[in-house]
This record gives sequence, structure tokens and C-alpha cells, in this order.
Amino acid sequence: MRNPSEQNYIEQLSIDCVIFGYHNKQLKVLVPKLNFNGDFWALPGGFVSQDEDIDTAANRILQQRTGIKEIYLDQFHIFGKAARNSLKFMTKLIELNPQLLSENGQYGKEFNWFTKRFVSIGYYALVDLNQVVPEKTDLDSSIDWYNIKELPEMIIDHNEIVTKALETLRFHLDEKLIAFNLLPETFTMKDVQELYETIYDKPFARNNFQKKILDLNVLERLEKKFTGAANKAPYLYRRKS
Amino acid sequence: MRNPSEQNYIEQLSIDCVIFGYHNKQLKVLVPKLNFNGDFWALPGGFVSQDEDIDTAANRILQQRTGIKEIYLDQFHIFGKAARNSLKFMTKLIELNPQLLSENGQYGKEFNWFTKRFVSIGYYALVDLNQVVPEKTDLDSSIDWYNIKELPEMIIDHNEIVTKALETLRFHLDEKLIAFNLLPETFTMKDVQELYETIYDKPFARNNFQKKILDLNVLERLEKKFTGAANKAPYLYRRKS
Repeated sequence: MRNPSEQNYIEQLSIDCVIFGYHNKQLKVLVPKLNFNGDFWALPGGFVSQDEDIDTAANRILQQRTGIKEIYLDQFHIFGKAARNSLKFMTKLIELNPQLLSENGQYGKEFNWFTKRFVSIGYYALVDLNQVVPEKTDLDSSIDWYNIKELPEMIIDHNEIVTKALETLRFHLDEKLIAFNLLPETFTMKDVQELYETIYDKPFARNNFQKKILDLNVLERLEKKFTGAANKAPYLYRRKS
Repeated sequence: MRNPSEQNYIEQLSIDCVIFGYHNKQLKVLVPKLNFNGDFWALPGGFVSQDEDIDTAANRILQQRTGIKEIYLDQFHIFGKAARNSLKFMTKLIELNPQLLSENGQYGKEFNWFTKRFVSIGYYALVDLNQVVPEKTDLDSSIDWYNIKELPEMIIDHNEIVTKALETLRFHLDEKLIAFNLLPETFTMKDVQELYETIYDKPFARNNFQKKILDLNVLERLEKKFTGAANKAPYLYRRKS
């Protein structure tokens, strides 16, 4: 584990990423579990190098965890309460992992670096879950997709960060036409409706919904294949390029 | 001028505020001119103390410049390009103001503090211009409302920050019902329409617009005063409390 206090990062500034995926009518979030004694979950995150744009840093972190280069992401909020620090988490971590103390039993520079107050930039990403191969870092024991309704309790304010990300996603869904990033390349109108119903956690009337989506004029309807019974198959759509 | 490098601020983190007002069909922004040789304009801004929430810091800065305590403000974007620093501005400032150099002709700690890369949190505020008494700080020679279409060229990326703030304001205007913060307590429907037309810089059809605003169900219509010719006067509205 490289010591961030010895790298050329901006101090007291972090990035936390909420990576949304969609599968089986469930909105999911990619969450690593930390590779220490004790059950610690934390959003994928990191720091910003002195010579790095914040968007580039967020992309780097996301690419590292998902393997995807071209990813839809949006900075959505900055979390900057004065009381926001990881002192409680770090204290518990060291209690359960005394090997992290230096030889003379003291907390190291790293502890001081981490336990300062951090202002964290929240990014959310929308990915096609099927294209992601979740990748652990040295710090993780595992990394998994969790149903947003069954997230583990994460460190610091990471659960609140997810709540705020979902709120922003709902708020921006219509104007920015971003939901399709959560679907595979081709999909049926039923897939789109189920996705929206999952994100908003409420049903939509079928006819109105389909009309609304088609009126956006961003989807292209593909030819049906004729395979005998295929005339019963629903149309497939994809985003216009 | 107190040296920020000697105060207990988070390093490399700043706040920049876009204070919007509205008057005579013009959207205006409150901009101070710096009290140095040379024509330097900069958005009202400041830094975050170690023990201060970022929202509290933004409120403090806004209250200092406008005299208003209860102010509508929203964090809208964080500006974090690696190339974003004030080296160019500070160099020109010192060239024109050599008295800022220390006795031995060296740049001081302050220069080093300011010329590091800063990540800046953008807040925008909406105020009733008539209630604001613009206040200079020690650093300002003047502070004035500028038509957003005739802003002076400001330091660093401050003009871009205003552009992004306007974009966000337009994006959020309908969902958040925030435009009324720019109007006095009571107003006519014509006032509201002119305000929207000014912000979006385009005309709206009168009947549709009024229906849309009334359908929001957030306005209360006040009684007309009967003063002879008053039956020709338009209705006054105010926000429901």
C-alpha cells in the first residue's frame, strides 16, 4: 500500500464515485470491501494529483475499478462539512489491525494524512453492468454489485453520498437522456420502462411512457428478424449515433 | 490585507460566488474591482476555514458582500482543471504593484500561497437586488452590478464560472421554482414573464406562460386596491408562504 502522504496529491481533497449499474429490475452500486480485519465497505475513491484535472482523476479511478475507458460520469455534489473526516473509521481500523501501527507503536504520517478533514467531490457513473469486470485494488478483499436497497453500511458518509447521487440521477434523467447508458446496446421499450420504474421506484403508465420516450427522438428502431414466430417479438431499439 | 497563508484555511481550495440580481429586464452579476494598480475584476470569493462547513463559508462570503443573511444559494459546479491557477494574474499584479514585494524584493509566502493550483467551488446566489447594499472589502476599489451581457474581463476563469452558473440557473429554473428569489415580495405576472424572458434570453407566449406559472400553484394572488382607475391595474402576486 503506497502512502498517499508521500505522493504528490492535493491534501484534504478526495473523490468518491457512485458507479450505477442495472440488472434484473435492480439498480446496483459497485462497492469494494476493504482488505483489513473488520467489515469495512467504502465507495471507490481516490485523490487528485497536483498536475491532474479532477475529471481526469475521476476517470482514472473509474477505469481502474470497471475496466471501461469511455464511461458516462458526472460530478454531482461536493461534500464539505467540517465534521466530515475519517477519524472514527481510522481509529476503529487500527484497533482491529494493530499491525498498521509503526514499530514504535505510533500512528504514522499516513494516519495523520487520512484523518484530516477531507472535502470530497462526488461523481456518479452510469455503466452497462454486463461490460464491467469489477477489479479489486490492493486495498480490497472483494468488490461487488449491491442492490441500492441493500447496501452495506459504509464508512464516513458514503451511504449519504449514494442517496444524493440517486437524487441527482432522478433529477437529471429526463433532461440529459442519460438512462440509456445503463442499458446494453439494443433494448426493447419494455426494458426502458422497467429501467425508469426501477430508478424512480414507481410504476409508469405504459402508453404515456412509450410516447414520451419516443417523442424524445433519440432512439432508432431496428428491423425485426422474421423467424416464423418473430412477429410476436417486440421491436429492438438503440440510441441514434 | 491579512495573509491567507497564515490563517487556518484549507490549502488549494477556494469558493467563487456568482451573485445574480435582476433589474429593468437585465440579469445582473455583482462584481468587485480589485484595489490595485491595473484593472482587475474578480468574482466575490474566499477560502474555507478548517473548522467551517463549505456552505457556511459561502454564506459568510455572500453576507459580507450583500448584507443579506437569508440568501438563496446553491453549489453548482467545482472547477478543478490542473492548469487552473492565478500565476499569470499574480505576476501581472506584482509587475504593476511592485510595493507588494517584500523588502528584499522577493515574492512572499502569500504569493506562493495564491499561485498554487486552486480547486474552486462555484456557488450561485439569487437576490432581490433592491435589498442588497453592495459592500467592498479592503481588497476592493469598487463593487457594482454588471449586466451579464456586459461583464468586464475577470481574472483566471471567472467569466467561464459565470457562464456555467447561468447554464445551471436555466437548467434548474423550472424544477426548483427559484426564480422568484430575484423578484421583490410582490410582483405582477408580467414581471415574472419578463424575468424568465431575460434569464432565457428569448420570448415566451403570454397565455401559455401565465398558465404554466399559475399551474405551479406556488403563487398567491393579492386583492386589488380600488382607487378609481385601479380596475385597470394588473393583479399583484406573491409566493405562498
